[in-house]
Amino acid sequence: MLDQTYTCIKLERDAQSPWVLHLTLDRPQSRNAMSLAMVNELSHVLAELESDFSVRAIILRGEGGHFCAGGDIKDMANARAQVAQSAKQENGSDPYFELNKQFGELILKMNQIPQVVVCVLEGAILGGGFGLACVSDVAIATSTAKFGLPETSLGIPPAQIAPFVVKRIGLTQTRRLALLGERFDGEESVRLGISHFYAKDDAELDQLLGRTLDQVKNCAPKANAVTKKLILKAAEFEASELIEEAAQAFSAAVQGQEGVAGTMAFVQKKPAPWAIS
Amino acid sequence: MLDQTYTCIKLERDAQSPWVLHLTLDRPQSRNAMSLAMVNELSHVLAELESDFSVRAIILRGEGGHFCAGGDIKDMANARAQVAQSAKQENGSDPYFELNKQFGELILKMNQIPQVVVCVLEGAILGGGFGLACVSDVAIATSTAKFGLPETSLGIPPAQIAPFVVKRIGLTQTRRLALLGERFDGEESVRLGISHFYAKDDAELDQLLGRTLDQVKNCAPKANAVTKKLILKAAEFEASELIEEAAQAFSAAVQGQEGVAGTMAFVQKKPAPWAIS
Amino acid sequence: MLDQTYTCIKLERDAQSPWVLHLTLDRPQSRNAMSLAMVNELSHVLAELESDFSVRAIILRGEGGHFCAGGDIKDMANARAQVAQSAKQENGSDPYFELNKQFGELILKMNQIPQVVVCVLEGAILGGGFGLACVSDVAIATSTAKFGLPETSLGIPPAQIAPFVVKRIGLTQTRRLALLGERFDGEESVRLGISHFYAKDDAELDQLLGRTLDQVKNCAPKANAVTKKLILKAAEFEASELIEEAAQAFSAAVQGQEGVAGTMAFVQKKPAPWAIS
Repeated sequence: MLDQTYTCIKLERDAQSPWVLHLTLDRPQSRNAMSLAMVNELSHVLAELESDFSVRAIILRGEGGHFCAGGDIKDMANARAQVAQSAKQENGSDPYFELNKQFGELILKMNQIPQVVVCVLEGAILGGGFGLACVSDVAIATSTAKFGLPETSLGIPPAQIAPFVVKRIGLTQTRRLALLGERFDGEESVRLGISHFYAKDDAELDQLLGRTLDQVKNCAPKANAVTKKLILKAAEFEASELIEEAAQAFSAAVQGQEGVAGTMAFVQKKPAPWAIS
Repeated sequence: MLDQTYTCIKLERDAQSPWVLHLTLDRPQSRNAMSLAMVNELSHVLAELESDFSVRAIILRGEGGHFCAGGDIKDMANARAQVAQSAKQENGSDPYFELNKQFGELILKMNQIPQVVVCVLEGAILGGGFGLACVSDVAIATSTAKFGLPETSLGIPPAQIAPFVVKRIGLTQTRRLALLGERFDGEESVRLGISHFYAKDDAELDQLLGRTLDQVKNCAPKANAVTKKLILKAAEFEASELIEEAAQAFSAAVQGQEGVAGTMAFVQKKPAPWAIS
Repeated sequence: MLDQTYTCIKLERDAQSPWVLHLTLDRPQSRNAMSLAMVNELSHVLAELESDFSVRAIILRGEGGHFCAGGDIKDMANARAQVAQSAKQENGSDPYFELNKQFGELILKMNQIPQVVVCVLEGAILGGGFGLACVSDVAIATSTAKFGLPETSLGIPPAQIAPFVVKRIGLTQTRRLALLGERFDGEESVRLGISHFYAKDDAELDQLLGRTLDQVKNCAPKANAVTKKLILKAAEFEASELIEEAAQAFSAAVQGQEGVAGTMAFVQKKPAPWAIS
């Protein structure tokens, strides 16, 4: 399934660690602008990954030195043409609405994917690219990173993006960044809490990626998936509402294959099965 | 409408940039303590501003070197007298409840006003003044700023204020600040995430205000209003619940006057109409 | 009631300040691992403290240089034996579920206790100990502190803990810490927002504790309790939903014993009754 040919993205299993999937946005000619075709391809990949525990980490980055420069202008032009057309046909559809909604659903899916998502944030991280960065589990910004929410300077809102920025860094900084169309670099992205780490050069980036993957390897895939689900729920629900669900998740995990193997490995002072390369 | 005469506040359109409204708390003799009359005047102004897109930024500050020292003691004394009176009359009203509720509703309105609210935080920013600071879009603290939540040291809770502090800086720091009656300065307010910037002197303050207004000017007023509304909703709702509303907002904006003009300006590499002074 | 003999914890009124309760986890031989017996004893103490306004601050720490190393392995083994047993008996109970749920309910109770909870975080603060640290009002980390969420490396989720970490430091850092099984020290715990202060040695710790207790003493106990309740609600509800409740709390407080005494003390420039040792 992950071997399917895509045109806007590239997929590659890591040669040394086949449980790592390199997912690369691959439209370098337009700084990996998020086209409708790219949204569809990413959605397809994420749907497949939802139940694929052979993949434990996803490294998401952009080809050609940019992460993602936002929405694609050609799609917007197409939508405009379709709107003109549909006005004549009176079929009631709204191509702008559909285009935007599909992108929102993609960010949501990326947020909820059970694997650990590691973003490498280089060059342009604008608009939709900014939104995508905000749903990673580990975000590493490089020295070339330029973040920004330029939408309202173009007369439109960062509609699907702003909510995920709020979940990422809170209301206080989001309102400033979005209402001023603020631009900032990788070091500031760490101070704001968008990125977890700043890599000043390739050596630091490699070191941070290596350390992160070593840590992922040490963690049981299903326990991680259950944990991620609980964490995302905790951001939306009262703690008291989650106690029973958490206890059920705990009980199931401790009696499951990973829980039994992990406890035994701990007692025997051996590495757990998932920690062996 | 904004030309009405007020007694507790001052309103002034900026001479150079008439889309900027200077809104000044004007009871310097009592460090701009928030009287019931001031609450009413502010509420009146905010109601007018809700639909006035000729104002795009509001600069909120206090006259005489203080932002706002909290609630007004005379109003409290009046309420006490009314309570004594109403006990005799048995009319069931609660002047303390009404006084406090009106202040809470004012903060809520200020939070939701569609313009960009820029607070200049000098001198006393205590109690209710602290609450007001917490709903600004851009907050600049100066070297004279003294923040604090002294309420519980007086035997009362920071009732309408604490919730907005939680929304501003989160639960972890709010519980400490409020339960210890903590006092702190402008630099600490930036570290805590209450203020966005610290200005060590007037030159820095002017520079920060100038930069902020340049950025606001570059952003389309209606797109900013829609964005602010979405951001505030995102702080309360699940991301999945907002996708449709965001897509509708996007579609309406892109087909609206600002969206059309903004896209055209971008393609033609000209400034958008709202960016021209 | 607080004089009852416990086996897993120690209770001691402060000699100089009897309104301060020292609550010490006391299983140093297992780095104060959270056994079911300890959960029960703590729950009992917290139930008593809910209505005991003679205690205004609780200093929570661990005996023997560690705060709390997480769940107790013997309880887990017992639960395993019970599960084996109950499978034979087919009585449908789930000892893992019950064990975990009781721990979740304990953290929730600790979060909501009306007193000011001050945690001293030394040595191991792992798993359940990490969760407990996340519901304190003031947290001081020392130079020996080692924080971590090692659960998923053992094949189980930090089920009751992760939600409280999210409430403490937000989604963005929690997903990284939990999904990587990250370990970090006291200074990093301040940067992440888990702890409020870092004490590099005992002198600094004593100074920070002394300053904190001086501040608590200055704050009225019931006003603090009402404030804490409002703050916790503000983390879960929209601000607009809290206005009436906040106004009622304000009105009741201002007309209550503390409000009357506090206002009078303020006017007379005397210390309030609760501020006198």
